[in-house]
Amino acid sequence: MAGFVVHGVPGSPYVRAALLVLEEKSAEYHLAALQLGTLKQEPHLSRHPFGRIPAFEHDGWMLYETQAILRYVDTIVPEPRLQPVDPRAAARMNQVMGITDWYVMPQISRTITFNRVVAPRFGRPVNEEAVKEAIPDARHCIGELARLLDGHDWMAGATLSLADLQLAPHLSMLALAPEGAEILTAHPNLKGWLVRMEARRSMQATTWDRLLDQVKSAA
Amino acid sequence: MAGFVVHGVPGSPYVRAALLVLEEKSAEYHLAALQLGTLKQEPHLSRHPFGRIPAFEHDGWMLYETQAILRYVDTIVPEPRLQPVDPRAAARMNQVMGITDWYVMPQISRTITFNRVVAPRFGRPVNEEAVKEAIPDARHCIGELARLLDGHDWMAGATLSLADLQLAPHLSMLALAPEGAEILTAHPNLKGWLVRMEARRSMQATTWDRLLDQVKSAA
Repeated sequence: MAGFVVHGVPGSPYVRAALLVLEEKSAEYHLAALQLGTLKQEPHLSRHPFGRIPAFEHDGWMLYETQAILRYVDTIVPEPRLQPVDPRAAARMNQVMGITDWYVMPQISRTITFNRVVAPRFGRPVNEEAVKEAIPDARHCIGELARLLDGHDWMAGATLSLADLQLAPHLSMLALAPEGAEILTAHPNLKGWLVRMEARRSMQATTWDRLLDQVKSAA
Repeated sequence: MAGFVVHGVPGSPYVRAALLVLEEKSAEYHLAALQLGTLKQEPHLSRHPFGRIPAFEHDGWMLYETQAILRYVDTIVPEPRLQPVDPRAAARMNQVMGITDWYVMPQISRTITFNRVVAPRFGRPVNEEAVKEAIPDARHCIGELARLLDGHDWMAGATLSLADLQLAPHLSMLALAPEGAEILTAHPNLKGWLVRMEARRSMQATTWDRLLDQVKSAA
């Protein structure tokens, strides 16, 4: 298939990050929606041998790993630039992208968000104990993100970057959980950042419901 | 402290990746060695609030997250360049860096390498069951890295990149485990890559024993 294709399950924060960068670039793309239960089988394993999402296609050339996809799209579609030129601003961007993968995903999204936001929607059982146990680490992680943001509008400083686009889908879902909303309340700067992110056309075009509607109307 | 400082525990593949990029740049740096038991306490938590390694300093400016450190050093010390200009070569580099974090670390280094190489050295108990259970995923992960390397000398293509420097410390240790050596045998191209990596001055300057010797002679 020609152009950009994102293979993934609507609702995944990583899939949404890939869509966000395409939306911010005003690039045309196709979301090839998958069912959650089909990731560990063909044809998806040929796209992503570890059976995760998103998998990405550009004129038939295949790529997986979300950070690699975000960086590739930013290079291929130059405007607006989403990686700062200043080395220390770029380092903050890369650091927040790393924090998202190493801490936000396991300590927040797989615990609080999965059980409060994802599991109910898929009719899966909710692990109350896992939510409760995750709160101290989640609070710590959110506190550190707020510290890194301090004094800036965006994660890498004065302008929107890939770090904002990778992180926002996670925190947008966290805010839907009562525990998440409560944790975010302690950090008005991070809450303000999330409000600015949610107001962007890219975020509004990629809500879970919007993606499901698109998939349905394309079917 | 002026210049580049890497705070970390000798033997950590992530610390070694940071040292490798500094060595490849022929940059002067100081390894501030830490004991494994002191990462979750001050002063380290002020450097790295998640209590991991490495933490990095450049003229007193602090940074953590290994990928961010590697990319920062590559920008600050331009020669030799360690990130390809070609967007698809850069994407392969970023993909392999992602695979190292998402799959090599949890599926190989925390399982086979930890139990066969790290635990015995620290006098910790060896979990034989964990080694045995890890083999299918480790085999799959190594197979995928060999597939991505196919036809190239280095992970991103024709020239050494940050991906080689991030991955090599993990596979160098894996090869010391009998199970790891056996898994690597199936992929002569990846074994050849590891031989080329081990022959580099940067790798030889940063072996576990060399780092411990340096720390001892500095004390």
